[in-house]
Order: sequence, then C-alpha cells, then structure tokens
Amino acid sequence: MNGDLSKLCIHTITTKPWKIEEAAKNYAEAGIKGITVWRDALEGRNISQTGKMLREHNLEVVSLCRGGFFPSKDPVKRKLAIEDNRRAVEEAAELGTSMVVLVCGAEPDQSLEESRKQIRDGIAAVIPDAAAAGVKLTIEPLHPMYADTRSAINTLAQANDMAEALKSPWVGIAVDVYHLWWDPYLEQEIKRCGKNGNLSAFHICDWKVPTTDMLLDRGLMGEGCIPVRQIKTWVEEAGFEGFNEVEIFSNTYWKEDQSMFLDKIVKAYKEHVLYDMDFVLNGKQAL
Amino acid sequence: MNGDLSKLCIHTITTKPWKIEEAAKNYAEAGIKGITVWRDALEGRNISQTGKMLREHNLEVVSLCRGGFFPSKDPVKRKLAIEDNRRAVEEAAELGTSMVVLVCGAEPDQSLEESRKQIRDGIAAVIPDAAAAGVKLTIEPLHPMYADTRSAINTLAQANDMAEALKSPWVGIAVDVYHLWWDPYLEQEIKRCGKNGNLSAFHICDWKVPTTDMLLDRGLMGEGCIPVRQIKTWVEEAGFEGFNEVEIFSNTYWKEDQSMFLDKIVKAYKEHVLYDMDFVLNGKQAL
Repeated sequence: MNGDLSKLCIHTITTKPWKIEEAAKNYAEAGIKGITVWRDALEGRNISQTGKMLREHNLEVVSLCRGGFFPSKDPVKRKLAIEDNRRAVEEAAELGTSMVVLVCGAEPDQSLEESRKQIRDGIAAVIPDAAAAGVKLTIEPLHPMYADTRSAINTLAQANDMAEALKSPWVGIAVDVYHLWWDPYLEQEIKRCGKNGNLSAFHICDWKVPTTDMLLDRGLMGEGCIPVRQIKTWVEEAGFEGFNEVEIFSNTYWKEDQSMFLDKIVKAYKEHVLYDMDFVLNGKQAL
Repeated sequence: MNGDLSKLCIHTITTKPWKIEEAAKNYAEAGIKGITVWRDALEGRNISQTGKMLREHNLEVVSLCRGGFFPSKDPVKRKLAIEDNRRAVEEAAELGTSMVVLVCGAEPDQSLEESRKQIRDGIAAVIPDAAAAGVKLTIEPLHPMYADTRSAINTLAQANDMAEALKSPWVGIAVDVYHLWWDPYLEQEIKRCGKNGNLSAFHICDWKVPTTDMLLDRGLMGEGCIPVRQIKTWVEEAGFEGFNEVEIFSNTYWKEDQSMFLDKIVKAYKEHVLYDMDFVLNGKQAL
C-alpha cells in the first residue's frame, strides 16, 4: 500500500533503544519527515548541532518533549520547575523547534484544585520566556489514570479552559488519542480548541485490549480500540494541518529490533491513520 | 478512636476469600450494618434464605452487584444481556434489596457512541421489570481506563445525562470515588445528580500511589490520594443519606488474614471517612 508520509512524525522515545543519530538516519531513510525530540535523547550533546544534524536529514523538529511538572507542596520545588521549563524553552529554540510539550504534573499530597492552580501559575510565569524565544508551550491533557502524579489536566475541556484563561499566542494544546479517546465531549472540545487557534499538536498510538501496564503498554495504531482515523478527521476539520506524531511507550516494542518496529509503524500509519481505499472509493471512513 | 458504624457497608468482594456466611458473621460482629452482595457470593445458594440469613445478622442488604454489560456487536448477546439483567433484578428482590448496580459494559470492536446507545436501550428494556420488582437500576460510571471493555459510561456527567434521558424513578446512579475523583466537574455533577433525585449509592476506597494493577490494586481509605471525606461531604450536601460502601479489589489485601483486613477497614473508615476531631473542634475538614 502506498501512502503519503509527509505528515508522519515519530517521537524519539518511540524508538528508545536508538540514539538520536540512529533514529534520525533511520527515520529519514524510511521517508519520514518529522521528529519530536525527548530531552533525554539530547543528553551529552550540543543541542544546536543536534538540531542541524536533524535538518540535514530533512527532518522537521516538530517539538521538544517535555516541560511541565509544575505542582508541588514545596514552593522551592515549584520555583525549580519554572526554571526547568525556561531551560526547556531555551533548548527548544537551540534545537530549532517552536514547541515544547508540557506534561503538567500533579502532586498527590494536595488537592487537584491546588495542583491545577499551580500549573496555571507555572505556565503564566514561563510565557514571557516562550514569547521571547518564539516557542509555544503546548499543554497535553493526560488520561485520568495519571491524575495522581503526572498531570492534573485530564480532559481537553480542562486544557481549553486553561488556554482560554491564559489567553496567549504562546500557549497551545496537544491532542493525544491515548489520553482523550474515551471522552464523550472530545469532538466538541476539539472544535473549540481549533476555533481558539490552540490546536498545536496531534499524537497517535492505540489502546491495547487488554492493557497490561498503565504506562508502558501502548499499541501501534490499529492494534487497539481507539478510533484514530475518526479523531484525525475531527482535528483536521478543526483546522489542524500539522504532523501526526507517533508516540508509543512500550516495553514490548522496545525489546524488538527497532528497524523492524519502524517498518511496523510506517505500515500501521498507512493502513490505520491515512485514509484507506474504502474511503477514497466510497466516501466511507472506517472507525 | 470511636466512630459511628451505622452507615458502613462492605461489599462481599472486598473480603473475597470469605464465603458470604463468614462475611455476614464477621461484619455483624464488627458492628457493621450494611452489606452489598456480589452475585458470585450467591452461587449454589437459595437466594431468599441467604437474604434472611443476612437480616438475622442485622445487616441491611444495600445492593446487589452487578448487572450491566449491555453492549455487543452481536444482537443475540445484547438480548442475553438484557435477560441476565432481568435475572439480576429478580435476584435482588429475592435477596431483599432494592438496588442492582450496573457496570454498563463496553465493546472495543465498535464505537463508544454505539456502546452508549446500546446501554441506554438495554436499561430502558429492563426498567419495566425493575419497576415491577421495586428494584432500582443504579448506573455506576467507571474510570476512563475501563472504557475499552467494562464501561462506556465514564463520567458522572454522562451518567446524569443518561438518567435524565431515561427519566425513571427506577434508575439511579452510584458515585464511586475510585472512578470519579479526578473529574474537575465532580462537585457540580454530584449536585446535579442529587437535585435529580438520582444519587443512589456511594462507594469508597482509595487510589494508591503508585497503582500497580489497573483492576486489583485498590487501596484502603487514607492510603492514597483521593479526598474521600471531601467527596463524602459533597454527596451529603446533595442530600445523600445512604451507606458508605467499601468496595476494594486488591490482590494484596485478599492475601491477608481477612479478620485483620476487616479491622483495618473499620479503622480506616473511622479515621479517614467519618469526620475527625479536627473537624468537630475547629470546623475544619482535612482533605
């Protein structure tokens, strides 16, 4: 099956066993045009040179993952988190990308309400730096099963509320199908997000049935029960024209030969994310 | 610490290693006044005699768990599910309880929208039986991490929508802190639920940090990050006067001596669910 890979992006964490240099080479050879860089992949490297290396492979650096983790009961830690987010903004600019994805954080020892307030305050504190660097702070709402320690922002409605309250061109939102697929208000909140001009990123993978690990058992698109194509249609109808970013954490796939895994990603992308022949011929779109 | 146990109910599944006869005896000896019976606990027993036995222990049978699981791609299976729910209603009446809890079900091979429609249709089909038996069908919204196979009803807002659409005195809603604690709209949806007269049940436990199993790692109240007391205040303010039902699935606790586990439940209930002295003396309520 042929397929247009011009909007395919892969997160470095998806092929975690590869160093970023190997990832870049292999993604490029597979015809992939986008890469999202996790900060651990930059360790011990000159960041601007790494950005240059990626561009030499004709890879657009879609975003840097990740900032966030603002809440804490300890005001010193909250300050350190803000500083770390400023560093992330700088690193993004050095790398040559205009987006930092935020996993906002949560503190199980305080109320979610308090954590949500600290997230808003934390992002507000970093906005001037983001503006100066030309980097968008992209709030990623996380699945409610991560509300204890990873993110107190758990629905797109919440992320929309927060982006509207912050009211800055330097704040955006990432729609990740893994976190949001279950939400009965997803379609309308995607519309709202697009209307506000806040729909900055689209992350894809699948929810395996059964899922055996809450963090590290994500599936390839088509392998689970998420209607990835349906959600893709919604984000496109809301005006999104960016990359489809494959973000898979998987102990299973990380154990495999990563070249074979990359082949599977490309195949799954063609078969389960791009519109298929049934759609082209009959105007019908599979769920 | 003293504490009023008159509103404490325990689900038979919480002390799964015990037969229902042992559970009844031990709950009663501990001063517990309510029991919710899981259907597996009734296997091989005369149901009305079992109900009589529970009442002889001065236990009120708060509900029967569980009906539901309506969605399927296969219309034959959907019909069988409706029949099974009618049986659950009969069993509840025989047992002497006026409530069946519904874990509504989900079918990963079809859209959530379709599953939600099938749930509504399934409940509607059982309402006449519920009315005839004097048994309330109580929708329990489940955590979004169960949206693949256990329930397509994942927020209290959804359950409220559905109960309002069904508009029957024989439909209610169970608020379970484990499933709903993360929801930023929880307080307002509890109010709405109470205003509608639909707040039928209140289930408690805790969300452990970290949670190592998606199904069988629930914690005792106070052991995790759920503000159980806060949510209890909300349901009471919404007019709820029923039992606080302890529903814990835990491989860890099921391995323990169940008498010691029961002591821990009673202690956790007193210390983390009932208002504590700090509240009584200072009007302050701990989160």
